[in-house]
Amino acid sequence: MSTALVILAAGQGTRMNSDLPKVLHEVAGAPLLVHAMKAGAALEPDRTVIVAGHGAEAVKKAALAHDESVEIAIQSEQKGTAHAVAQAAPLLAGHSGDTIVLYGDTPFISTETLERMAKARTRHDVVVLGFNAADPARYGRLVMDGESLERIVEFKDADEATRAITLCNSGVIAAQTATLFKLIDAVGNDNASGEYYLTDIVGLAQAQGLSATAILCDEAETLGINSRSELALAEVAFQARARAAALEDGVTLIAPDTVHFAHDTVIGRDTVIEQNVVFGPGVTIESGARIRAFSHLEGCHVSRGAVVGPYARLRPGAELAEDTRIGNFVEIKNAIIDEGAKVNHLSYIGDAHLGAATNVGAGTITCNYDGVMKHHTEIGRNVFIGSNTMLVAPVTIGDDAMTGSGSVITRDVPEGALALARSAQVDKPGMARKMFEILKAKKAKRDKGAE
Amino acid sequence: MSTALVILAAGQGTRMNSDLPKVLHEVAGAPLLVHAMKAGAALEPDRTVIVAGHGAEAVKKAALAHDESVEIAIQSEQKGTAHAVAQAAPLLAGHSGDTIVLYGDTPFISTETLERMAKARTRHDVVVLGFNAADPARYGRLVMDGESLERIVEFKDADEATRAITLCNSGVIAAQTATLFKLIDAVGNDNASGEYYLTDIVGLAQAQGLSATAILCDEAETLGINSRSELALAEVAFQARARAAALEDGVTLIAPDTVHFAHDTVIGRDTVIEQNVVFGPGVTIESGARIRAFSHLEGCHVSRGAVVGPYARLRPGAELAEDTRIGNFVEIKNAIIDEGAKVNHLSYIGDAHLGAATNVGAGTITCNYDGVMKHHTEIGRNVFIGSNTMLVAPVTIGDDAMTGSGSVITRDVPEGALALARSAQVDKPGMARKMFEILKAKKAKRDKGAE
Amino acid sequence: MSTALVILAAGQGTRMNSDLPKVLHEVAGAPLLVHAMKAGAALEPDRTVIVAGHGAEAVKKAALAHDESVEIAIQSEQKGTAHAVAQAAPLLAGHSGDTIVLYGDTPFISTETLERMAKARTRHDVVVLGFNAADPARYGRLVMDGESLERIVEFKDADEATRAITLCNSGVIAAQTATLFKLIDAVGNDNASGEYYLTDIVGLAQAQGLSATAILCDEAETLGINSRSELALAEVAFQARARAAALEDGVTLIAPDTVHFAHDTVIGRDTVIEQNVVFGPGVTIESGARIRAFSHLEGCHVSRGAVVGPYARLRPGAELAEDTRIGNFVEIKNAIIDEGAKVNHLSYIGDAHLGAATNVGAGTITCNYDGVMKHHTEIGRNVFIGSNTMLVAPVTIGDDAMTGSGSVITRDVPEGALALARSAQVDKPGMARKMFEILKAKKAKRDKGAE
Repeated sequence: MSTALVILAAGQGTRMNSDLPKVLHEVAGAPLLVHAMKAGAALEPDRTVIVAGHGAEAVKKAALAHDESVEIAIQSEQKGTAHAVAQAAPLLAGHSGDTIVLYGDTPFISTETLERMAKARTRHDVVVLGFNAADPARYGRLVMDGESLERIVEFKDADEATRAITLCNSGVIAAQTATLFKLIDAVGNDNASGEYYLTDIVGLAQAQGLSATAILCDEAETLGINSRSELALAEVAFQARARAAALEDGVTLIAPDTVHFAHDTVIGRDTVIEQNVVFGPGVTIESGARIRAFSHLEGCHVSRGAVVGPYARLRPGAELAEDTRIGNFVEIKNAIIDEGAKVNHLSYIGDAHLGAATNVGAGTITCNYDGVMKHHTEIGRNVFIGSNTMLVAPVTIGDDAMTGSGSVITRDVPEGALALARSAQVDKPGMARKMFEILKAKKAKRDKGAE
Repeated sequence: MSTALVILAAGQGTRMNSDLPKVLHEVAGAPLLVHAMKAGAALEPDRTVIVAGHGAEAVKKAALAHDESVEIAIQSEQKGTAHAVAQAAPLLAGHSGDTIVLYGDTPFISTETLERMAKARTRHDVVVLGFNAADPARYGRLVMDGESLERIVEFKDADEATRAITLCNSGVIAAQTATLFKLIDAVGNDNASGEYYLTDIVGLAQAQGLSATAILCDEAETLGINSRSELALAEVAFQARARAAALEDGVTLIAPDTVHFAHDTVIGRDTVIEQNVVFGPGVTIESGARIRAFSHLEGCHVSRGAVVGPYARLRPGAELAEDTRIGNFVEIKNAIIDEGAKVNHLSYIGDAHLGAATNVGAGTITCNYDGVMKHHTEIGRNVFIGSNTMLVAPVTIGDDAMTGSGSVITRDVPEGALALARSAQVDKPGMARKMFEILKAKKAKRDKGAE
Repeated sequence: MSTALVILAAGQGTRMNSDLPKVLHEVAGAPLLVHAMKAGAALEPDRTVIVAGHGAEAVKKAALAHDESVEIAIQSEQKGTAHAVAQAAPLLAGHSGDTIVLYGDTPFISTETLERMAKARTRHDVVVLGFNAADPARYGRLVMDGESLERIVEFKDADEATRAITLCNSGVIAAQTATLFKLIDAVGNDNASGEYYLTDIVGLAQAQGLSATAILCDEAETLGINSRSELALAEVAFQARARAAALEDGVTLIAPDTVHFAHDTVIGRDTVIEQNVVFGPGVTIESGARIRAFSHLEGCHVSRGAVVGPYARLRPGAELAEDTRIGNFVEIKNAIIDEGAKVNHLSYIGDAHLGAATNVGAGTITCNYDGVMKHHTEIGRNVFIGSNTMLVAPVTIGDDAMTGSGSVITRDVPEGALALARSAQVDKPGMARKMFEILKAKKAKRDKGAE
């Protein structure tokens, strides 16, 4: 049966104290909204509608960047969750399956939970996701009668007995699409805040003889983000899970608390991650690699046996083949480094291809930018690039070639050739001593003048 | 009414196990003494006397470096807190207002607490700062009778009933200046340690018919530092508060525990601070900037929209205008970077001014030091500095100019000009292969010789 | 009396989920096995036998690398701890003293504990190391009668009363060598897993009229490592102890939780370690140095008054004399830096010697590798190396010499001389503006073609 997702992402998030729409704040390198989209995507929905409002353009852009098939509905005024879902009605008119409502600021719902909700939907008309709250505080309470969810009572409307219930409402809800929008149509706003509450559909469903139930999940899954402190805590929660999972998968983290994963980091068994490593999005690392301390990786692939860092920065498009070495104070961007090649010290390699077993000396720079455009540097196999070589792109260095230290290479170098661009060394005897004397005299004069 | 501060800073701090006087150990990039001075300064005192003893010269220097208006009294022998305060008497003779006694090793007293003490002083002759101790341990106990502070009982002199009191003495005390020194004159040293205790003035005051009271503060404010462990814990406490405050102010800290603030760091709303960022003293950052991972900032200003790092080091005097970019492995010192200028890779820019929209290539160095003196580099607007350009200061590069990659620029470059200092590239066909053979043969010979 | 160690190191460590033998996983930069060897070495054993099995070659290599005097016994099949110890019997035949059995995956046994065991051995035939478990879980229980250890009962064989005992078996055991192997000969494998348990020798000893006792240690000492999570926790435990010890010794750690020590790091009093510093093995730092943030040190020595970092990497063989300065983005490897010398920015100094008071400019590289061999760079006293100097080793720079910025130095420079290898600067008026126009036109054409 087909499933549609409606993800509510219209709120401003006043407590974030930010110009950025709340759902675009990030956890583990991805906007909260993308986490919600990824969670929902596990259900393989045929339709996904994002309800945007505050910062709708930015929200739309982020949503489409992650998945260009999603549709955007606009909630111009914030009149409650039922009103928000209702904005998706025109887009989902005629949808024959179920709809599940998720929240753009609730990033951690698990696939397994959503699957249990879908399964429960086959037995009940409305399925609500609940959780046993450690501190129920002001959450709405789920009043159950056996498997039947009788009603959801907002905290402020609850009597003492109902407040004693710890089973709380997460807001996530599933129903047949047609049923959902029919119930939403009936929701009123006759309450203190004058808003249309999605939770009201449970009572309406029961009144109409439909059945409702609640599925429970761990409270951590329903964590909603309302402030930067909560955002930071969500990051902490994500990282704790990611670190534990990596250890379980056979990755060594010397100091797990100092390793920061992105939402999509993949690391192979027997890879060692040293202290203070940051992963941006899009990193895959094979087995048996080593990422040394103080490294920063993003959008890159590291193969078996490669050693990266310390202080290495791999930027998007860096592809490291097996047994490569990227050393300290080295930046690699959009570059393929073939098997066994080494860039060990103080270099910038961008928009380039390095052949196998090539060695790049310290201080080498691919001069890929001419002030207007970027150009490619092609380096062959078994090449020895001397220290501080400037490779002015576009340029090609043939296999087995060599460049002299300190050379500015502006033309292609044939294979096997030695390329030099260097001035002869001239020694001026005694001149250093003389210059020091002159400089010291100048300084003395200047210092005297300053008195 | 005028207020004088007396800050006790004479102790050696034996448990610090250090040659450095205790009050000069730092929290959040400032000596403990400076924290105490800043706390007291909130009262806008007309006089501030630091009582120095151990390491008096160093203490004096640090105190005057922070505030050159403070006065220094010397306590040559450590004979107790009353004796220490008494050293300030000659300096404060004739002072007509109040005096408040603070401690150089107690950095966290809040302004609000001191203001409450000042207010209480209008109703009582002597005001003592107390706190409810979670673990009262061996603190002196405050014996109250309603609002009246009857006496302070040292732990060792306390009976069971008095020991059950959890209200403890912080040592901070306020009184009219004349009253304070008169009471101190009467303090004796007839006790086990033979020292003159400032706390004795409460009993003396009551005996003379003066009134005393206690004001309460949070225990965290009265935290005194006696060992490096306690120093480290004070740092932890400071950082926890600073991180929470930043989040509250609308700053995003991706991993708050990895961001280290200085005592005076100022960061605008919607600025993002990534993982592992260290702030030294003197940093201000406007709204909407981004400080990337592994960056180190000190004595600098970062404007709106600027992106710094990862692995950027901004040293004192770095001034980044709006929308500037300072990238990885880049050091900026005493340099003004105008709007939209970029220094993205592996560069050192010191004692310089970069014009708007100028792009500095990787590996560029302002050669600001000639071995004796430092010199300035002036770079215009829309300049393109080729990779690995050496700018031998003093030197000026005109607007819209360009330098060739690998050039050593020793003379001023006119605006719009291209400056090159480069040797022609020479390729020696087959020479690289030949050299490798020769080197390998040499190595084989050497290895054989080593057998 | 002489002592032999038997260290069991044959296990695969299935739960590690690793190709690396369990005992070769590292804590604080040393394999678990080496920690056990170091613990045992405190007893000054005359013989040390490592019982290897899984990955025996790698285990042997690591053991001998740490101490080439150890002997290796091979346990080809894993048939229990008694069987493992039995593999050492041929090597220790005729050994006249005691044998103590340690575990290669139990790194934290203290010297003091082992000494207490040795002492207890003078009064009892068999001594077992026990601990009071916070959560006894499935540990074997020690059944005592006064000072006498009656028997060790495995959890699965224990009745309720025995399970209530919290005194648990660590597995560490000591006995006269001849006695130990005689008892082990008598151990059977008539149990559920069909293995030979070393713990059975206690019951056998009692049955033979020998005496047994247990010595207690802190549970933390007996921590065994069975998974990468436990490995990470062991690292945390090690670091907590190392940080506390450093603070106690008078080292300032600004943020202790961000400093990572190796097993053998030595740091002098009044040295300051800033945030995010990683120590690999083999580092010694004298008093009064400063290691700035984001530094990485390994196999190096730092003398009094030296300042290292931020972002400095000291690799094995770096020897920094007093008052040296190694600055940001600088790598030092196998190099002696004499008193007062400075390498402040973006440099690589490898296989070199720098004389006293020499200043190395930004971007300097010792070109120590010719593609086949490494060569030495010798720099004298009071030398001024201009920025971006390439020192093509082997090469010697005399005292008081100077190199021009951007020079490639291929020949020795006499003392007092100025060496230059530089092209004259040529300015092409208006050419930069023209080039920008051409490049922009090209780009426009290319962009148009891409449409």
